[in-house]
Amino acid sequence: MIDTLTVSTTGPGLYDFTQEAHNFVSEAGASEGLLTVFVRHTSCSLLIQENADPDVQTDLNSFFRRLVPPTDDPSMHWVRHDTEGPDDMPAHIKAALTQTSLGIPVSDGKMVLGTWQGLYLFEHRDQPHTRQVVLHLLG
Amino acid sequence: MIDTLTVSTTGPGLYDFTQEAHNFVSEAGASEGLLTVFVRHTSCSLLIQENADPDVQTDLNSFFRRLVPPTDDPSMHWVRHDTEGPDDMPAHIKAALTQTSLGIPVSDGKMVLGTWQGLYLFEHRDQPHTRQVVLHLLG
Amino acid sequence: MIDTLTVSTTGPGLYDFTQEAHNFVSEAGASEGLLTVFVRHTSCSLLIQENADPDVQTDLNSFFRRLVPPTDDPSMHWVRHDTEGPDDMPAHIKAALTQTSLGIPVSDGKMVLGTWQGLYLFEHRDQPHTRQVVLHLLG
Repeated sequence: MIDTLTVSTTGPGLYDFTQEAHNFVSEAGASEGLLTVFVRHTSCSLLIQENADPDVQTDLNSFFRRLVPPTDDPSMHWVRHDTEGPDDMPAHIKAALTQTSLGIPVSDGKMVLGTWQGLYLFEHRDQPHTRQVVLHLLG
Repeated sequence: MIDTLTVSTTGPGLYDFTQEAHNFVSEAGASEGLLTVFVRHTSCSLLIQENADPDVQTDLNSFFRRLVPPTDDPSMHWVRHDTEGPDDMPAHIKAALTQTSLGIPVSDGKMVLGTWQGLYLFEHRDQPHTRQVVLHLLG
Repeated sequence: MIDTLTVSTTGPGLYDFTQEAHNFVSEAGASEGLLTVFVRHTSCSLLIQENADPDVQTDLNSFFRRLVPPTDDPSMHWVRHDTEGPDDMPAHIKAALTQTSLGIPVSDGKMVLGTWQGLYLFEHRDQPHTRQVVLHLLG
């Protein structure tokens, strides 16, 4: 079973889609299997991260912005790919440092996520985007 | 087939569970399939890395500690999530930079690991923890 | 179905194997399923990245070289594992920061890659290498 989830983003940060993935697994009706989550873009990515304190998400975003600043920052003078804006090449780098696909076992009809784990799309671009996340269940 | 492996950790570093994963695949008795390894936490992670020279593991740990120091280091003044100790938010960041799930094909009843590849839980917290690693075989 | 792809590399950078993966999926003849790509080494890795502007690949390589310089750079004085050359330990670190395995859903007989997504082996060693990439289809 396969479906495509659309996530609308309005700037850098983490967007929770745990509930949507949970619903997909429920509707698939499989007791055991493997959920694969795949994002069809190279300037955003996927993360499994803490869902309790929103500061964790803020700090994650801050860390990646400090590690890979926009290309109008002098420290990024070496970047060649800069025609799509100062946030574009850093977005590709941040995507390379995180995940494009995630595999999550399903048992007793549920993802085996830990108590504090949520599923996030990690947007790296400044402008609003419509992102496609493929949900695929094999079992 | 699914099972949960418990890994006891005593501070930051890599903990080898290759043999336990090998045993799981053997007991499952599947000739062909896909092993998914999934860690149910957001302050430790998974790595496939060199199993020959222990210095590689030491250096990996050193690199991540230098890239993401404890939050009582002045360079980390921007962190908001600091109530769970100076090692907590860095642990989430290091987990984001590495893996929460791994997919490993199984062929002829064995994981297709290269000669020098081992499976590791990468602990990022200072205090002892009991970590749950889900092993899931589909095939 | 499983196959091993050989990728010959001649120094650091991204090597596109999207077409080879596409051919493998076509020959497998499966309409729906999951492709797992697994690299059997710890000093190179896998990336899904933009396939349009070659400068993106150059910049990705530059970023990782700046983040993790060769160990004859003074900033890397703390590295212990240096007997296999100044590019070896950085290669392990860059592999840890990117991917060893990728899961890509297959639908209607094709990988669900986005328009701008290509599959790359990311070589981190200076000398020529012959790399093994396992392609595995379940479905």
